[in-house]
Amino acid sequence: MNDQMFIKAACAEARAGLQEGGIPIGSVLVRHGQIIARGRNQRIQQDSPILHGEMHCLANAGRQTSYRDCVIYSTLMPCYMCAGTIVQFGIPRVIVGESRNFSGASDFMRSHAIELIDLDDPECYQLMADFIKAHPQLWNEDIARD
Amino acid sequence: MNDQMFIKAACAEARAGLQEGGIPIGSVLVRHGQIIARGRNQRIQQDSPILHGEMHCLANAGRQTSYRDCVIYSTLMPCYMCAGTIVQFGIPRVIVGESRNFSGASDFMRSHAIELIDLDDPECYQLMADFIKAHPQLWNEDIARD
Repeated sequence: MNDQMFIKAACAEARAGLQEGGIPIGSVLVRHGQIIARGRNQRIQQDSPILHGEMHCLANAGRQTSYRDCVIYSTLMPCYMCAGTIVQFGIPRVIVGESRNFSGASDFMRSHAIELIDLDDPECYQLMADFIKAHPQLWNEDIARD
Repeated sequence: MNDQMFIKAACAEARAGLQEGGIPIGSVLVRHGQIIARGRNQRIQQDSPILHGEMHCLANAGRQTSYRDCVIYSTLMPCYMCAGTIVQFGIPRVIVGESRNFSGASDFMRSHAIELIDLDDPECYQLMADFIKAHPQLWNEDIARD
């Protein structure tokens, strides 16, 4: 699988979240070309402010001794919570579907020598743009924009 | 209650975690002088790499529209995951029990204008120092030091 295929897997998580009534942001964690965990934003589903897509994915991966050989994919640029987690866990490579809806903590990750690739994927972009337009308050709550 | 009392409440969480076989780091979230959530590291108990004490506390607080009137207390200086979360959530004030066992992401939080107070509490220090000495591998796993 290549980056486009893994982002499609993350996007499938985002769509599953939307079907559940949740915020459509998805993530997969990949090691040696294999998906080892999947996740999607759980704010609505689990009443949790910390389970962004990336965090849910990392929680689902369980305990790991190292993340040095992992790549994390997210449909949207990570916020400071998710970026801080990526920095702390030592995940060296981050591939995002898009950053037009949210520029997140890209500079922070790059300043910590994380390789960050933005695919600017039209499907990821449209899914999130539609959600933000329909549910601006939920989106603002999710990124604590008050 | 004052800062010392709230740190004692966080320390009680840390001790409860130790009793459960967990990593002894605890946290409380305070609004207007009242504890609104408590948490403790859940790596062992819930097989979760993301539930550091601060994250468990914020998860237990549930969805909030704003954190601008909140203070978070932690027995130990927050790592980048927890600090990134504090920055993203807009928590303006962080009080830690100690930072001698782990200097964490203090500079990062200060660079985001977070008020950070280190009480250098002997009880918090000794609890964590004893744990790190007894379980160095678990501690290294918790901060992803590989």
